[in-house]
Amino acid sequence: MKRALRITNCGIECAASVVGKFEKSGPLGGVFDLHGDDDRFGQRTWEKAEAEMQRLALNTALAKGKLRERDLDAIFAGDLLNQCVGAAYGLKDFNVPYFGLYGACSTAAEGILLASLLVSSGTLSRAAAVASSHNCTAERQYRSPLEYGAQRAPTAQWTVTGAGAFIVGKNASGAHVRAVLPGTVIEKGVKDAANMGAAMAPAAADTLLRFFRESNTVPGDFDLIVTGDLGYEGGDILCDLMDIEGVPIRDVFNDCGMMIYSRDTQDTHAGGSGCGCSATVLASYLLPKLKSGELRRVLFLGTGAMMSPQIIQQGECIPAVAHLVCLAAKEEKEWKLC
Amino acid sequence: MKRALRITNCGIECAASVVGKFEKSGPLGGVFDLHGDDDRFGQRTWEKAEAEMQRLALNTALAKGKLRERDLDAIFAGDLLNQCVGAAYGLKDFNVPYFGLYGACSTAAEGILLASLLVSSGTLSRAAAVASSHNCTAERQYRSPLEYGAQRAPTAQWTVTGAGAFIVGKNASGAHVRAVLPGTVIEKGVKDAANMGAAMAPAAADTLLRFFRESNTVPGDFDLIVTGDLGYEGGDILCDLMDIEGVPIRDVFNDCGMMIYSRDTQDTHAGGSGCGCSATVLASYLLPKLKSGELRRVLFLGTGAMMSPQIIQQGECIPAVAHLVCLAAKEEKEWKLC
Repeated sequence: MKRALRITNCGIECAASVVGKFEKSGPLGGVFDLHGDDDRFGQRTWEKAEAEMQRLALNTALAKGKLRERDLDAIFAGDLLNQCVGAAYGLKDFNVPYFGLYGACSTAAEGILLASLLVSSGTLSRAAAVASSHNCTAERQYRSPLEYGAQRAPTAQWTVTGAGAFIVGKNASGAHVRAVLPGTVIEKGVKDAANMGAAMAPAAADTLLRFFRESNTVPGDFDLIVTGDLGYEGGDILCDLMDIEGVPIRDVFNDCGMMIYSRDTQDTHAGGSGCGCSATVLASYLLPKLKSGELRRVLFLGTGAMMSPQIIQQGECIPAVAHLVCLAAKEEKEWKLC
Repeated sequence: MKRALRITNCGIECAASVVGKFEKSGPLGGVFDLHGDDDRFGQRTWEKAEAEMQRLALNTALAKGKLRERDLDAIFAGDLLNQCVGAAYGLKDFNVPYFGLYGACSTAAEGILLASLLVSSGTLSRAAAVASSHNCTAERQYRSPLEYGAQRAPTAQWTVTGAGAFIVGKNASGAHVRAVLPGTVIEKGVKDAANMGAAMAPAAADTLLRFFRESNTVPGDFDLIVTGDLGYEGGDILCDLMDIEGVPIRDVFNDCGMMIYSRDTQDTHAGGSGCGCSATVLASYLLPKLKSGELRRVLFLGTGAMMSPQIIQQGECIPAVAHLVCLAAKEEKEWKLC
């Protein structure tokens, strides 16, 4: 898979999102399918709340597509929690073959990518990709419990409380998947776990540059090149890296972590992050625009920083990966790629 | 994927294993490719030692197949560590598309299964699956640091220090992959994290029963039905469950966790476990027997228990998954399945 892989007869049939209270009050608040008022979703612990969001997201996506669990051939799912318990516990009652993924914040893209490859080749008829994050589980696990009130660095991102689910199948009623390019692991010496955008930007640049080269496209061929989630800091670094390479993307660039919160009224420092950020923004904001034709050609790059708190304490740098999914509106079906 | 998926033109081209000192001194000690004398593999921390084992395993597998990293289209890899840092850090220097998996001890099977589906469909030409575990990282993370000398329950398994790497491609010089069946998540109310065999056995039974039904085969069609890793406790439960279902497997059953250590001279209680257990036993003990024809038809079931220490403390049960890979010796190429 040195080359971008062309995908045929495959698309995202439907998708759904579940978010927390803070995300609901942000600029995209109106587009999400479900939201909780206390971020607990009726559960006793934050971990179980996150699992519940995965269950709700997949059930909602199925309902929106008038599908049942027996219509799914597989589920690809993951999250940021130790041993990925958000996905395992949230989806354990679905009687569907289950593939656990760990791609950090690239999980939604990794799942859509694998599902698309297997649907496009005819191996599966329909598969789901599900990903989540929860601010309270992530803060406790990666940094410190919320109750400590620790001060955050200006480059730190805010983990989104949210889950997104995508149904990938042959009926591309939502958006076509036209090509995918899986990322390689890139590590450029960044050790600051409070600046994951900086650690992930080189991985995004690597995947993007390979995609343009291998698909004979240029940034201007796309309405939107959207990462999830570099935030303001990492997004700026990515644009700089692409300028240096002579492939400027700033005019068509955006980042899910820059879109989900208001910079004026919600103080999240460098923007949103977490598997749930790109998953919810893609599911409920970008896909409807592809369906309506408002967006026609979109490069969606899931970016993941794959360190653990322990290995950072051991002095290691942060390796990152960026998986690319090229999406197109229905009307763009004659568009040739790769 | 309700049905077992038939795989054509695909096999395990080569494989390699790396183990620790304790595994080297066990009954299979002579078959592993590499071993360390102090379980540190030249690294300062246990986590980095585990990552180094993944690197060594993949490099050795490539060398055995006279392959280079550019011959790989993808790597599927994972481990038990928080955020799967064994795989991410161990494989970060390979310039190959990287898919992070989390399947607990089923990771090797999950990786071989996904690689086989993508090679068989022609999407990829060749892909690697890599999995590892390390006794010292797992004990500290799941139970308590080794230095505490905590007493172990009789049903507890011993996490293997080891890593296995598999190269899946069209040239089935090692063994053919004939069919795969991904598992669904099964949770039957087991809450005892010191008895993961009991939690995983129902998942193994579920996958096995579906496989026999969907492929029109019976246990007697196989030389060996091998799980990885239920250990003595879980293995016995699985055989009992299959007896109850009227599909006895005891005559052809074994478990990687029962094979890797001596019950007489190595006191591991219920046997071995960890992603590295089934990965090393398959890579260096079972595959050579398939290559030589000593084994002809093997069902390999990777079994994973997907809890985290935290969610067990929160009172939750242990969900498990079992992924099946049906392997055949070269001579069995006329054997029809599914």
